[in-house]
Amino acid sequence: MNICAAQCNAQRELPPAQLVQQIIEAATEHADILGCGFRDLQTTHMAWVLSRLAFEVSRLPRVLEELRITTWIENFNRHFSQRNFEIVSGGEPIGYARTIWIAIDIDTRRPASIERFTDLAATACDDRPCPIAPPAKLRAVAEPGSAREYIFRVSDIDFNRHVNSARYVELMLNSLALETFDTHTVKRFDIDFKHEAHFADVAEVGSKVTEDDNGTLTMDCDITVAETLRTLSRTILTPRK
Amino acid sequence: MNICAAQCNAQRELPPAQLVQQIIEAATEHADILGCGFRDLQTTHMAWVLSRLAFEVSRLPRVLEELRITTWIENFNRHFSQRNFEIVSGGEPIGYARTIWIAIDIDTRRPASIERFTDLAATACDDRPCPIAPPAKLRAVAEPGSAREYIFRVSDIDFNRHVNSARYVELMLNSLALETFDTHTVKRFDIDFKHEAHFADVAEVGSKVTEDDNGTLTMDCDITVAETLRTLSRTILTPRK
Repeated sequence: MNICAAQCNAQRELPPAQLVQQIIEAATEHADILGCGFRDLQTTHMAWVLSRLAFEVSRLPRVLEELRITTWIENFNRHFSQRNFEIVSGGEPIGYARTIWIAIDIDTRRPASIERFTDLAATACDDRPCPIAPPAKLRAVAEPGSAREYIFRVSDIDFNRHVNSARYVELMLNSLALETFDTHTVKRFDIDFKHEAHFADVAEVGSKVTEDDNGTLTMDCDITVAETLRTLSRTILTPRK
Repeated sequence: MNICAAQCNAQRELPPAQLVQQIIEAATEHADILGCGFRDLQTTHMAWVLSRLAFEVSRLPRVLEELRITTWIENFNRHFSQRNFEIVSGGEPIGYARTIWIAIDIDTRRPASIERFTDLAATACDDRPCPIAPPAKLRAVAEPGSAREYIFRVSDIDFNRHVNSARYVELMLNSLALETFDTHTVKRFDIDFKHEAHFADVAEVGSKVTEDDNGTLTMDCDITVAETLRTLSRTILTPRK
C-alpha cells in the first residue's frame, strides 16, 4: 500500500501501532489465501489469536512511500503457528517482524487443534531468514514510573469483541510525550498478549522508562484489568540522527 | 481495498471512523494525482484542512468485501473545495459522502489562496450527482446528557500535529455502548471541524441522544477544549433489520 499523509503521525511516519496493524492484516490475508483464515476456522468454531509479536526496524515507513510486507510461516504445529514478515518501504528493506498465533475454540476460549488444516504445514518455509530475535519474554513493570486509567470503549473493540491488538500498542506508546518521538525513533517493539480485555473494562496502563549512556530509551509497559495482567510490552527507542 | 477481519469492529463491519479515514485518504491521494496534494501545497507553506464532512449509507462495508471509493471535485474557488464521494462495497453502491476543504497558510493558520492551482478548477465535475444533503450546520449540545474527559495523546495526533480527524469520530461514537451498535447501524454522520486541538489538550466530550417513534437514534456530540468548541457532530442510527 502507499502511505498516505492522512495515515501518518506527527513525525510523518506510519505510527508503530499502524505498522503492527499492517503486519496483522498481512497475516490474516495470507491465512485467507491458504484456506485457514477466520472464515475457514469459524466453520469449526475456531479463531486465530495473536499471542506475541516483535518487530525491529532501521527506520519506520515514511509518508508517500510504498509499504510492502511479505509474510511466511516458519513453523506450524497442532496448536500454534510462527509467522514471520519482511518489511520493505520505499523500495528499501527496513526490517522484520515475528509473530506467534494460537488457534482457540471460540466457545471455550481454550487452545484448539488445527489438525484439520495440517496440509498447511507443507506451506512452512523454515529456510527463509528472519534475522531478529524472537518475541521477548516480558515481565510486569515492578515499580511503575506512572500508571493511568483508561476505559475501553466502542472504538477499541475488534471483530472478536475483544480489545484490538493495535489499540494496546497505541495505549502503551501513549505513555510517552509527543516530543520524545521527535527526538527518538522506535527501533524494536515486543508485545505479549496474556489475557483478553473487553468493552467497558477499566484498565491501568503502567510504564517505566530507562535511558542508557547512548540516549537509548527502554520502556516497559503493562496493561492490567481487575488486577489481572492483560498485555505486556517493551519498546526500544534510539535517538534520531 | 479489501476489508480485512483485523480492520473490522464487533459488528464485523468497517467502523464509521475508518470509513471517514478512507474517504480522507481517497481525497488526499486524488489531490496528489492532481498536483495539489500536501507536498505540492507545502512548497507554498499551505495545507488542506478538512472543514466539514457528511456520509450517508444504506449499510456499512462488511468484512472481506472490496471497498471502492470514487471521488470528484464538485466545486472549487480561491479558498475552498467541495469534494464528493461514491462508496461501493462488495460490488454494491452503498452510499455517498460530501466534504468541504479549506486551504490554510501553515504559519498563520489563516485561509490561504489556492489561485496558483486554479487550473485545477478545470477538473471540477459538477454534473455528477451526489444525492445526499450537504454537511449539516450543527450547534453545540445545549444540555449534554453526558460529558466525559479525554486527554489527547500521541496516537491521536496527525501529520499536521493536530488531533486526527478520524479520532474525533471515534471519540464521539464512543459516547454510545457497544450494544447500541449491535441493535442499530449508522445511516448518516455529519461532522463540523471548528478549531484544531493539540497534544495534551484536555477535552470534554458532550453528547445527547434522542429516539423517535421508529426507534431511530439521533446523537449530537461536541468536543470542547478550554471552553472553546473544537468539533461538532450528528449521528443518525436506525434499527438493524
